Amino acid sequence: MEVLQTNLIYCIPALGLIGILVMISKSVWVSKQDAGDAKMQELAGYIADGAMAFLKAEWKVLSIFVLFAAALLAYSGSIHEVNGREIHSSWIISIAFVIGAVFSATAGYIGMKVATKANVRTTQAARSSLKKALKVSFTGGTVMGLGVAGLAVLGLGGLFIVFLSLFADLGANTVKTAIEVLTGFSLGAESIALFARVGGGIYTKAADVGADLVGKVEAGIPEDDVRNPATIADNVGDNVGDVAGMGADLFGSYVATILATMVLGQEIIAIDNFGGLSPILLPMVICGLGIVFSIVGTWFVTIKGEDSNVQTALNLGNWSSIAITAIASFFVVKWMLPDVLVLRGYEFTSINVFYAIMVGLVVGTIMSLITEYFTAMGKNPVDSIVQQSSTGHATNIISGLSVGMKSTVVPILTLAAGIMLSYHFAGLYGVAIAAAGMMATTAMQLAIDAFGPIADNAGGIAEMSQLPPEVRERTDNLDAVGNTTAATGKGFAIASAALTSLALFAAFVGIAGITAIDIYKAPVLAGLFVGGMIPFIFSALCIQAVGKAAMDMVNEVRRQFREIPGIMEYQAKPEYEKCVAISTKASIREMLMPGAVALITPILVGFIFGPEVLGGLLAGVTVSGVLMGIFQSNAGGAWDNAKKSFEKGILINEAMHYKGSEPHKASVTGDTVGDPFKDTSGPSMNILIKLMSIVSLVIAPYIAVPTSTLAETTHTEQHMQVHQASATVNNKNCSHTCSPEEMKAAKSEGKVCTMPSNAAQSRFSTESKKACCEKPGIKDRFK
Amino acid sequence: MEVLQTNLIYCIPALGLIGILVMISKSVWVSKQDAGDAKMQELAGYIADGAMAFLKAEWKVLSIFVLFAAALLAYSGSIHEVNGREIHSSWIISIAFVIGAVFSATAGYIGMKVATKANVRTTQAARSSLKKALKVSFTGGTVMGLGVAGLAVLGLGGLFIVFLSLFADLGANTVKTAIEVLTGFSLGAESIALFARVGGGIYTKAADVGADLVGKVEAGIPEDDVRNPATIADNVGDNVGDVAGMGADLFGSYVATILATMVLGQEIIAIDNFGGLSPILLPMVICGLGIVFSIVGTWFVTIKGEDSNVQTALNLGNWSSIAITAIASFFVVKWMLPDVLVLRGYEFTSINVFYAIMVGLVVGTIMSLITEYFTAMGKNPVDSIVQQSSTGHATNIISGLSVGMKSTVVPILTLAAGIMLSYHFAGLYGVAIAAAGMMATTAMQLAIDAFGPIADNAGGIAEMSQLPPEVRERTDNLDAVGNTTAATGKGFAIASAALTSLALFAAFVGIAGITAIDIYKAPVLAGLFVGGMIPFIFSALCIQAVGKAAMDMVNEVRRQFREIPGIMEYQAKPEYEKCVAISTKASIREMLMPGAVALITPILVGFIFGPEVLGGLLAGVTVSGVLMGIFQSNAGGAWDNAKKSFEKGILINEAMHYKGSEPHKASVTGDTVGDPFKDTSGPSMNILIKLMSIVSLVIAPYIAVPTSTLAETTHTEQHMQVHQASATVNNKNCSHTCSPEEMKAAKSEGKVCTMPSNAAQSRFSTESKKACCEKPGIKDRFK
Repeated sequence: MEVLQTNLIYCIPALGLIGILVMISKSVWVSKQDAGDAKMQELAGYIADGAMAFLKAEWKVLSIFVLFAAALLAYSGSIHEVNGREIHSSWIISIAFVIGAVFSATAGYIGMKVATKANVRTTQAARSSLKKALKVSFTGGTVMGLGVAGLAVLGLGGLFIVFLSLFADLGANTVKTAIEVLTGFSLGAESIALFARVGGGIYTKAADVGADLVGKVEAGIPEDDVRNPATIADNVGDNVGDVAGMGADLFGSYVATILATMVLGQEIIAIDNFGGLSPILLPMVICGLGIVFSIVGTWFVTIKGEDSNVQTALNLGNWSSIAITAIASFFVVKWMLPDVLVLRGYEFTSINVFYAIMVGLVVGTIMSLITEYFTAMGKNPVDSIVQQSSTGHATNIISGLSVGMKSTVVPILTLAAGIMLSYHFAGLYGVAIAAAGMMATTAMQLAIDAFGPIADNAGGIAEMSQLPPEVRERTDNLDAVGNTTAATGKGFAIASAALTSLALFAAFVGIAGITAIDIYKAPVLAGLFVGGMIPFIFSALCIQAVGKAAMDMVNEVRRQFREIPGIMEYQAKPEYEKCVAISTKASIREMLMPGAVALITPILVGFIFGPEVLGGLLAGVTVSGVLMGIFQSNAGGAWDNAKKSFEKGILINEAMHYKGSEPHKASVTGDTVGDPFKDTSGPSMNILIKLMSIVSLVIAPYIAVPTSTLAETTHTEQHMQVHQASATVNNKNCSHTCSPEEMKAAKSEGKVCTMPSNAAQSRFSTESKKACCEKPGIKDRFK
Repeated sequence: MEVLQTNLIYCIPALGLIGILVMISKSVWVSKQDAGDAKMQELAGYIADGAMAFLKAEWKVLSIFVLFAAALLAYSGSIHEVNGREIHSSWIISIAFVIGAVFSATAGYIGMKVATKANVRTTQAARSSLKKALKVSFTGGTVMGLGVAGLAVLGLGGLFIVFLSLFADLGANTVKTAIEVLTGFSLGAESIALFARVGGGIYTKAADVGADLVGKVEAGIPEDDVRNPATIADNVGDNVGDVAGMGADLFGSYVATILATMVLGQEIIAIDNFGGLSPILLPMVICGLGIVFSIVGTWFVTIKGEDSNVQTALNLGNWSSIAITAIASFFVVKWMLPDVLVLRGYEFTSINVFYAIMVGLVVGTIMSLITEYFTAMGKNPVDSIVQQSSTGHATNIISGLSVGMKSTVVPILTLAAGIMLSYHFAGLYGVAIAAAGMMATTAMQLAIDAFGPIADNAGGIAEMSQLPPEVRERTDNLDAVGNTTAATGKGFAIASAALTSLALFAAFVGIAGITAIDIYKAPVLAGLFVGGMIPFIFSALCIQAVGKAAMDMVNEVRRQFREIPGIMEYQAKPEYEKCVAISTKASIREMLMPGAVALITPILVGFIFGPEVLGGLLAGVTVSGVLMGIFQSNAGGAWDNAKKSFEKGILINEAMHYKGSEPHKASVTGDTVGDPFKDTSGPSMNILIKLMSIVSLVIAPYIAVPTSTLAETTHTEQHMQVHQASATVNNKNCSHTCSPEEMKAAKSEGKVCTMPSNAAQSRFSTESKKACCEKPGIKDRFK
């Protein structure tokens, strides 16, 4: 046990590595599966090439951005003093940033690579059985999930160790600087995530809408028909948007959540057996264990025969990994954390930290259930859209918008209750660790999420290769389950993003040196207004970009039908690559503007108006972003399933309606409107709010306000109290290594003994070791 | 001049009375105009009867609510102590509430009464000339405008005088209690406004959508055809929604804005010639003068011949009344206010108050211009919707949503700048007076607004009576201008609502005894989230109500076509009254839920979680409500005009498209989606945010927090300083009536001489007259 205590910090990247090793073995397994006949392989090849072409083009643009931003960060990291205040940063933050960006891109790449392999192999597997098709597609998803989680834990854990030793000579400021520099990793990850999500989202929906408008409507050929020049782009879109985009997104979320908890943990006064680092290490340990338990969970995802319920299998896997992680986190918390912790004057016990984690899990579960209720077929909300489709396009849209808006109520109330409860249990650290607990099983969540688009693609390949109907039936079965898991995944993602943003927000307040964000002040309120507006303009830009790019696509498809004779008679092959190029170019062009809004606004506001106004801006972005995210994702999901309800026929006004009926046409309109909502702007909201918080956190030291006179007085007073306190305890023979008895004695006097028992091994300066007992509520432990 | 100074308070209701007298004379003039032939009069009679039937049904329900709420208020007003704190209220607040409700209903009634008279007379006038048609319709609008503004100023000014004398024996608390009780008037007005706006909005859109769906689409008869059983309900809707609803809405806004300024003005320390009341009286004086200058402005609204530009005439009238009011307010401010004023420690000069008013005017103007840009035909945003209609219903909707979201950017930046600037000039009083300045010419604004629906109705009557095409052409000309003015009016309304809410918010903070609303605190942040969600659920309920009510209407119209033979052959008269009854019943049933959300939420949150969390909730509602209001109103307006663009034919992809083409059908879908957006939920947003702020203001004394230890200390210190200060100045022979020299002398020592020179005539207690000089920054002037 002692060995584990001493070396726990090294176990974290090891857990990440385990995830990556399992991922590699699963990836090899997928590659080994039968890839079907030549035609299937040809089509799959087009899709894989198109996806790679997009990623390459995207990376080319993003590498310029990354280098530019890294240079800026390196410059700012070399500033060590602003207005007489010390800044704990280093030019190395730019390295962390680049690594974060590269890891994020890699996570997306791994997912896309395996997805473009797994799709055709799932089609082939579906020729024999549903069980096998599920195994291939879900294993593909698992590769993605383990890749993302493994890279994140490896990156964060590994870099933390490296930075601790790099800055070891900073003495008291070692940990602070290491974490400050680590924010660069998160910034890199989240920046790439934003561009990947927005760019991928625009790509996939431009291709989808464009392919449908000319192919289905004008030329009258079915969806996924090889004669449609845009059909490959459409299938590529599923991979770059729903797989690579989502991978980068969740990589960013995962990293940001852990980092936010670490930043707050760093401020905690704790006497533990881990060099005082336990509150910092805890989120990484829990998430590392979450990877292992996600692997365990995947063992349960299997079915018996053709009639087995796929959803049940996935649920079993998901819930078992969550349950094991929850139980494990109880023991980990008890083992790692000291009995009493103090953050910014808020005192809480270790068991309360565990309760906060439980709050996070409950909030995440409720959010998922509500999302499912509002977007599932056969439930009241989707049915109301179906019924209102009978009176036309307009009433379909009206009811969808109304469903989306109504769907915000319970999630927001849940979130509000979650914030209050997790804060009640463990202060701001509670809010952060609740989010981290929620994200612990990201590997499993993502495996379930990513399996959907793989199944979707598999169905497309089956259609294009004109395979027998039972193949398509099997992939459709998987696809339908994938739609539900995609919806619940989005609920989870927005909940965790909201809590993470709050944690980042709290971390920002601490670093920026402000004690309150008072919206009663006019400039702060103005910041709140402007912040609330950002998600609106961001959504508008995304939605508009899809519209524009779809138009380009429509024109190209029309040109090909006109200028290349013989396409319709299968005698000439359409120029797929031209459509792929158009979608690629348009999405990369259109992703820049929304990205710039997200990155530049906090910098401008922070430097011009100061940290408190920036705090108001962040609060506005978070509230409005969460609302718009839930509204758009759920409205889109509900429209989608309202349309799908017509496939098996549906009863409206005592008459059955099928595909092709007028109400069905109205439902197609709703689905098309919902496309950019649910796949472009909606899911970008959670990246937007996190990215703006991280940018603020990174610039916080440079815009920090000088402590006010009042605050200074209080500070001085506190210092005097501390000196008195340490004097008293020192008289009581408090040695450098506090024994449990001394801790109790100190506590009975309202003090906390802060020096960890293994202080000898720790990196703390000799000076800081002298003052081993402090009054609770003092932030600057080692100053 | 001295006489005016002494009796200024009596001039205010007199100005309101002038407005009402002019209104009566204009109303008589409208009644005297030719009402056309028997058929026209019969149709107009149906419309007038339907509108009255709705108002009666609405009033019946609302009177129950008013009595219930009044009883609650009377009870709460009789509580004079909560947790040992004194509360300055009285059961008379319930009387103020009832009067406010009755005045608001009367304002709506006057508008509707004149509108249902002016519509048919405008049709008749349009048979001779455009000039005459404009005169009749605009005079109808003027009656509405003057009625609303006149009643508001008469009510506020008159009740203030009454309450001052009623509470004269309260000595130091006279003014405080009078204004506290006056909030009841505003609460009554705003409650009725909410129900009128929501109920009217549901009515008009249910009838509109229902009439169109069965009449135009199923039966294939034109709009406004007498054979359609819902056509009368449709025309009634214009009157109860766009006229009566809007009248009650603006009455509420106007009252709330003035009241908020009075509440803040009451806290100001000012030495003036008006018994220290100048900051309280100023908003009423400016708005009273605004009525007179609006009357002057109406003289400019006239045209020469058939080719004259109606818009130019309206603009001339509008701008001249604004310009005169602006100039007058400079002199009024200089005359009334002392050189230096202090509010909650913020010191500002009288000229800065004038600048704050100018900020309000500029903000209002920019908001109007932006609204016009985003909703006007031929401008880029509407054109983009038109172009995207060529690819179908979905792309039309997508581009409309995107236009609506984009349209929030400049208004929010303007508003944010307006908040910061007006605060910079004159603190919170500056924010409030900016809103009051913006609302000063409400009479003119409303005249321009209300003339639109009158012209619209006149066109409907012309169509139903089968008058010659040139009559319809003239009314269409007026109607088109009316659409633009309606859009700019909405921009103005939302801007003033935002500023008013902030002022109410500030007033609330003062009364609730809190010093900050710190969103860094978890419960306050949770409140912010919940507040942000309210406009979403409110909108969802409104939109859904329109959908449901439209369905009822569709079924009734189908029933009549089926069961009453001979309707289509003009041989049987449809049962218009049944459709009217359905719309009436549905709208009254559906308005209750959103109204309850608005009224009950702040009470629950305030009493359970306290004032600071309620403050967070209000901030969330305001930010999210302003955004949703702008988004929905502008999207709806843009869709409407995109559809109208097809009437004269429009060029898309090098081909002309007219009414009946596929792109036109897509644009009709957009317009129908936009209907509840722009006429039901969108404009309700500004009432929602104001109403919730007023409810909070009314309950503020009951949920106020006990002053904290720190604050108490400061308070005691301040009191000591005050005593010292007054002692010093008393030694300098400061008499009860401060001379200008003494004021200067006191100021040079950093003190302010607070006793007005006409203190002898004022109602202040003898005791309070003793201490005539105080240090700036002390709130409780007469305690």
